[in-house]
Amino acid sequence: MGEVIAAYLVHDAKGNFEKKAEGIALGLTVGTWTDMPVLEQEQLRKHKGRVVSIEALEDSEKTNLYFGKKMGRALIKIAYPALNFSSDFPAVLTTIFGKLSLDGEIKLVDLELKGELRTAFPGPRFGIDGIRGQLDVYNRPLVMSIFKGVLGRNLEFLEHQLKEQALGGVDVIKDDEILFDNPLTPFDERIKLSRKILKAVYEETGHRTLYAVNLSGRTFDLLEKAKRAAEAGADALLFNVHSYGLDVLQGLREHVDLPIMAHPAFSGGLTASSFYGVSNALLLGKLVRYAGADFSLFPSPYGNVAIPREEALAIGENLTGHETEWKTSFPVPSAGIHPGMVPDLVADFGMESIINAGGGVHGHPDGARGGGKAFRQAVDAVLQGRDLESYAREHSELEKALQLWGGAPSGSK
Amino acid sequence: MGEVIAAYLVHDAKGNFEKKAEGIALGLTVGTWTDMPVLEQEQLRKHKGRVVSIEALEDSEKTNLYFGKKMGRALIKIAYPALNFSSDFPAVLTTIFGKLSLDGEIKLVDLELKGELRTAFPGPRFGIDGIRGQLDVYNRPLVMSIFKGVLGRNLEFLEHQLKEQALGGVDVIKDDEILFDNPLTPFDERIKLSRKILKAVYEETGHRTLYAVNLSGRTFDLLEKAKRAAEAGADALLFNVHSYGLDVLQGLREHVDLPIMAHPAFSGGLTASSFYGVSNALLLGKLVRYAGADFSLFPSPYGNVAIPREEALAIGENLTGHETEWKTSFPVPSAGIHPGMVPDLVADFGMESIINAGGGVHGHPDGARGGGKAFRQAVDAVLQGRDLESYAREHSELEKALQLWGGAPSGSK
Repeated sequence: MGEVIAAYLVHDAKGNFEKKAEGIALGLTVGTWTDMPVLEQEQLRKHKGRVVSIEALEDSEKTNLYFGKKMGRALIKIAYPALNFSSDFPAVLTTIFGKLSLDGEIKLVDLELKGELRTAFPGPRFGIDGIRGQLDVYNRPLVMSIFKGVLGRNLEFLEHQLKEQALGGVDVIKDDEILFDNPLTPFDERIKLSRKILKAVYEETGHRTLYAVNLSGRTFDLLEKAKRAAEAGADALLFNVHSYGLDVLQGLREHVDLPIMAHPAFSGGLTASSFYGVSNALLLGKLVRYAGADFSLFPSPYGNVAIPREEALAIGENLTGHETEWKTSFPVPSAGIHPGMVPDLVADFGMESIINAGGGVHGHPDGARGGGKAFRQAVDAVLQGRDLESYAREHSELEKALQLWGGAPSGSK
Repeated sequence: MGEVIAAYLVHDAKGNFEKKAEGIALGLTVGTWTDMPVLEQEQLRKHKGRVVSIEALEDSEKTNLYFGKKMGRALIKIAYPALNFSSDFPAVLTTIFGKLSLDGEIKLVDLELKGELRTAFPGPRFGIDGIRGQLDVYNRPLVMSIFKGVLGRNLEFLEHQLKEQALGGVDVIKDDEILFDNPLTPFDERIKLSRKILKAVYEETGHRTLYAVNLSGRTFDLLEKAKRAAEAGADALLFNVHSYGLDVLQGLREHVDLPIMAHPAFSGGLTASSFYGVSNALLLGKLVRYAGADFSLFPSPYGNVAIPREEALAIGENLTGHETEWKTSFPVPSAGIHPGMVPDLVADFGMESIINAGGGVHGHPDGARGGGKAFRQAVDAVLQGRDLESYAREHSELEKALQLWGGAPSGSK
């Protein structure tokens, strides 16, 4: 049936990690072992957790300061037999990090699914190749932009923003994640509007743009609502998976024929601490991919709302690494992105990624249309091996963007 | 329509909390304000977030050590108009702590629902009074116990444990939260078994015990499964709400006529850090109550898996405080509980709480039956104003428990 191997960052002042690891492996499965009668051991052996590895880590000064004493650190891996749980995320997460999440300074940093269990998680329905096929765009990173300042605005306001963004040549436009169902711009009306506008732009320019509408509301209404969106011709769904649950994302993936974009809202509560919670690479990389997100947004390593560069890269690797059972998901490093960062973004996240901006599109001196063009020009420059400054001399939108926001942020690499 | 007032613990080296608070109030609602044309201000005024209060907090040495520098701390409160979001937890949480959860050292410590919005969240269906009515037990804390070591075991094993626990006189028995659907002890069979055994014990002793069966599996199958459980005569549902989502709990509360016990599994990932995530008092107190849990389990302030006493007390207060719209929920401080702790538990959590033990019941020298009796005797002693030691001289199960585990842990108060 397989097993889950969970990797944890653990802390122990005395460095007694063997005992800690064994305690977890038993405590989260059969309870005790050495005191158990041999006959019962035989019966329960296949349910018993197993310590896979214990790797002592170097001392961390930051850790010692936090604890106010010298604190040993280790990476331990524990295998949990799939026989012990049903093949769904709530059961897996409760098994490997249920009670354990409450047990002091321990962080779940990785997870490997082994054997048959892998087939229980669907991965993206479309994946990077599927999205590229829909857009008919290959061999370059995609460009995406975000509605801005839409609360309290009506459909005319959205229509204008949508049109300007699309005319700028972005490939994907996403709803603001804080735009929910509301009387001014209802869900179904936004879908209708996007079909009209994006079709018109396509007919005018030959450029196709997808719009991800924010799927929100009560959990048990989502399937029906998402299917209605698909029938109405929606392009994609934006989904605040971390304020719902990974299994809800998976259910949508399995039952609705639309690409899904996983937004990282609320995920920081689980990922931000160095000592507790779940790693960014696992939550925003592996888990949303396994559950079925075609796109995963996450904080870029640049800008104000940032995560460490190695964490952002690890998310990207988990989304795009080859896995026989699962399609790849688009990494969408977000927040604080402007056109001058495109060379860094491509260097860090590669061709199979999406360059995503809100303020960096809408704040362009020529508006969102100019912002979109500036991004596309920056991508073209990188693809042609040109430096942005020289390319900008031939492309006014990029030039204006660089004048406003500058080039690559110093120290971003 | 009302509003949500969110309280955050924020950190800023320069102590510029006015700017930070204003940035949140605008950034999570209308985006900008002072640069906005007056006409648009008029249009958007009712959508604008509002800074309610800013309270500078004393320096914390632990905080300064963590940051490696002197760091200002403040408690800020921001009001978000209910007009901006739909009346459901995913929308509320995404609004008040979506992007913000990713924005550095900020912790969501409290939330107040104001106005009409309060009616959108159902609270417990039964609540403390409803559960007491089902059990016909008033004027004392309830006693609860937990199945132990059930992975890989069959129905006969469960039958024995269930019977012994019930004969010990506990009021509630819960499934192990890591027992999922499995061929040895299927969900429906566990319900059937519990009806048979608990009815037999009731007929023998006149004591009624409720059994909370673990509701697990895929999210979109839960409603049907829970309704099936209700039809089969289940007493209550155990639910790992934090590996599903608060809104799933709320949906179950609204559609299924059974008490629900919220388990804290996986919640430590959100609550354990002092600088990030969500407070225990909010998540395991207010939010599970508003969503509809009749019982909320949380780590006790005693034992190995412990949380600070003031946090545990604050959870209890949030579960039991008077609120016109919502029934109260039973606080169930858990982990590391033995009979010697009962005076402390009653002093800390009062009559309207549940004393819950796993090892402290099953590890009793006379088995689970003796363990349950020892707890009930300890409760009786406290109700009669007797000290445990003298009462134990007349009650052998309590005496054995005190001999094994001792009295109140030193320093627990």
